[in-house]
Amino acid sequence: MKIGILGYGNLGRGVECAVKDNPDTELVAVFTRRDPSTVKIQTPNVPVLNVDAAKDWVGKIDVMILCGGSATDLPKQTPEFAKMFNVIDSFDTHAKIPEHFAAVDAAAKASGHVAIISVGWDPGLFSLARAYANAILPDGNDYTFWGKGVSQGHSDAIRRVKGVKNAKQYTVPIDAALDAVRSGKNPELTTRQKHLRECYVVLEEGADAAEVENAIKTMPNYFADYDTVVNFISEEELQTKHAGLAHGGFVIRSGKTGMSKEHGHIIEFSLKLDSNPEFTTAVLVAYARAACRLNAEGNNGCKTVFDIAPAYLCAQSNEELRAHLL
Amino acid sequence: MKIGILGYGNLGRGVECAVKDNPDTELVAVFTRRDPSTVKIQTPNVPVLNVDAAKDWVGKIDVMILCGGSATDLPKQTPEFAKMFNVIDSFDTHAKIPEHFAAVDAAAKASGHVAIISVGWDPGLFSLARAYANAILPDGNDYTFWGKGVSQGHSDAIRRVKGVKNAKQYTVPIDAALDAVRSGKNPELTTRQKHLRECYVVLEEGADAAEVENAIKTMPNYFADYDTVVNFISEEELQTKHAGLAHGGFVIRSGKTGMSKEHGHIIEFSLKLDSNPEFTTAVLVAYARAACRLNAEGNNGCKTVFDIAPAYLCAQSNEELRAHLL
Repeated sequence: MKIGILGYGNLGRGVECAVKDNPDTELVAVFTRRDPSTVKIQTPNVPVLNVDAAKDWVGKIDVMILCGGSATDLPKQTPEFAKMFNVIDSFDTHAKIPEHFAAVDAAAKASGHVAIISVGWDPGLFSLARAYANAILPDGNDYTFWGKGVSQGHSDAIRRVKGVKNAKQYTVPIDAALDAVRSGKNPELTTRQKHLRECYVVLEEGADAAEVENAIKTMPNYFADYDTVVNFISEEELQTKHAGLAHGGFVIRSGKTGMSKEHGHIIEFSLKLDSNPEFTTAVLVAYARAACRLNAEGNNGCKTVFDIAPAYLCAQSNEELRAHLL
Repeated sequence: MKIGILGYGNLGRGVECAVKDNPDTELVAVFTRRDPSTVKIQTPNVPVLNVDAAKDWVGKIDVMILCGGSATDLPKQTPEFAKMFNVIDSFDTHAKIPEHFAAVDAAAKASGHVAIISVGWDPGLFSLARAYANAILPDGNDYTFWGKGVSQGHSDAIRRVKGVKNAKQYTVPIDAALDAVRSGKNPELTTRQKHLRECYVVLEEGADAAEVENAIKTMPNYFADYDTVVNFISEEELQTKHAGLAHGGFVIRSGKTGMSKEHGHIIEFSLKLDSNPEFTTAVLVAYARAACRLNAEGNNGCKTVFDIAPAYLCAQSNEELRAHLL
């Protein structure tokens, strides 16, 4: 399976690692909007090319993995590249998925390719956990907790506060809330009860710490509805202790069965990830396998993780899966 | 969706509950090998019929849910009923799945029906957790823990010991082993390190407790390789405190990514169930929906959970799934 990468940031590098771990996949080209001569990749003998050269690779790449951002890159790139290739993206703006799906579906159907969007862990594996659990326990409640991990959006919001030089914000699930959910009590949890916001902030020279702390803690949408802890540290400490890309989270469904709803059940799916981008791209490459196989069977159009039977993700044959993993 | 039940024990009763929870399903008939007049079901105006009458219901039942046992019932019933109906079973003799699959596949293909076998939680949801996690983290280790819950096979084995009147055996996962796995250390765990066997035993009048305890603890295959705790209790206590059908377990994959395998990841799926049969049948009914839809699309033959895209299990439309669960 010949894989192309579009965009060589954290996700692009992750795809490169994942391809190494899957013997049936091979990286054949990396496309970038930067000057290709400035992009150094880790795999020997693979060309790095300008994005405009992608059209010359039609027929030479089985699946193009799109590693751009959801805000501006993917809404344009996924439909455009679905005209030329089978594609996978990790589009994660939940509210805009229906619109993105429609644009990609039209392009992929017209060209006869398979496009799988919103692949990763949320959306992605967490969506699968929610769908399976809802199908099995129609009478129940869903709970999703994120973290502990860095939220890019919240870190950016802190950096926009006057007097802040740099910052990282961790979203931390609150144990008491997790325990209440796991107990089967079906609690109604406020925003504040579910997650804590832990901030590591580097001040500008001469900035007032109390003012910055207050500005962060009262910021609407981002922090005002949460318990927020602000720690002031040096730039050096931020770089050495808070450069990691760990993340994770929990999807729990708590439901009831029985003629009098007398039995409670907890279905829990959780992830603890040392590297958010490397794990995300491990999921992308598994779905690239599915896209390739589905297209070879004559399928086309836009799909999500809900539309893909798990066997399509697996390197093993159906016989091996039944014998060893069932 | 018109559902038939074959066999009215714990599973049959569970299907009846699950049908009530899914507004798009309707129970139309229960078939039994017993005298139908002795079988009282909970749903009004649904006939209970002898199993031989099933052939008269061809065309009137969309999916027949087979609620027999894996040892002797299902190997015969599933191929036989797949000749007449779309069928779902919970065949759980892992080692014999390939053979069962082949027999059911031949029958279902010949008749144009869809049969989904080995549906439930293990095999079933645990198999899915293993397959997704293996596809995503090819370099890793799988760990499955069961319990806390009653093992029927081990309870039966204790009852065969001389001097034992009655018994229940709980399989208990050991916390230290779970913690070691979750830490990402990829431990090699012995049988003894993973599960504890907790036995509640009622002695026959005049039996020697020490002898019985020794006979249980040294029993090969069942107990000798485990730490086993034997508690002697009265029949009354067994009936009042140990009649529950709770169960559960954990599937964990611990894997590595990165150019130097420097990042560890933990994928964990767990279940905590008040009623093993009611949860199992909730899964069966979700897959009955899939069987019905797949057959309506012209599919036939034997399938497992690996072959079914999650959207087929869900009552919601694909648009609703993308908008609300992705």
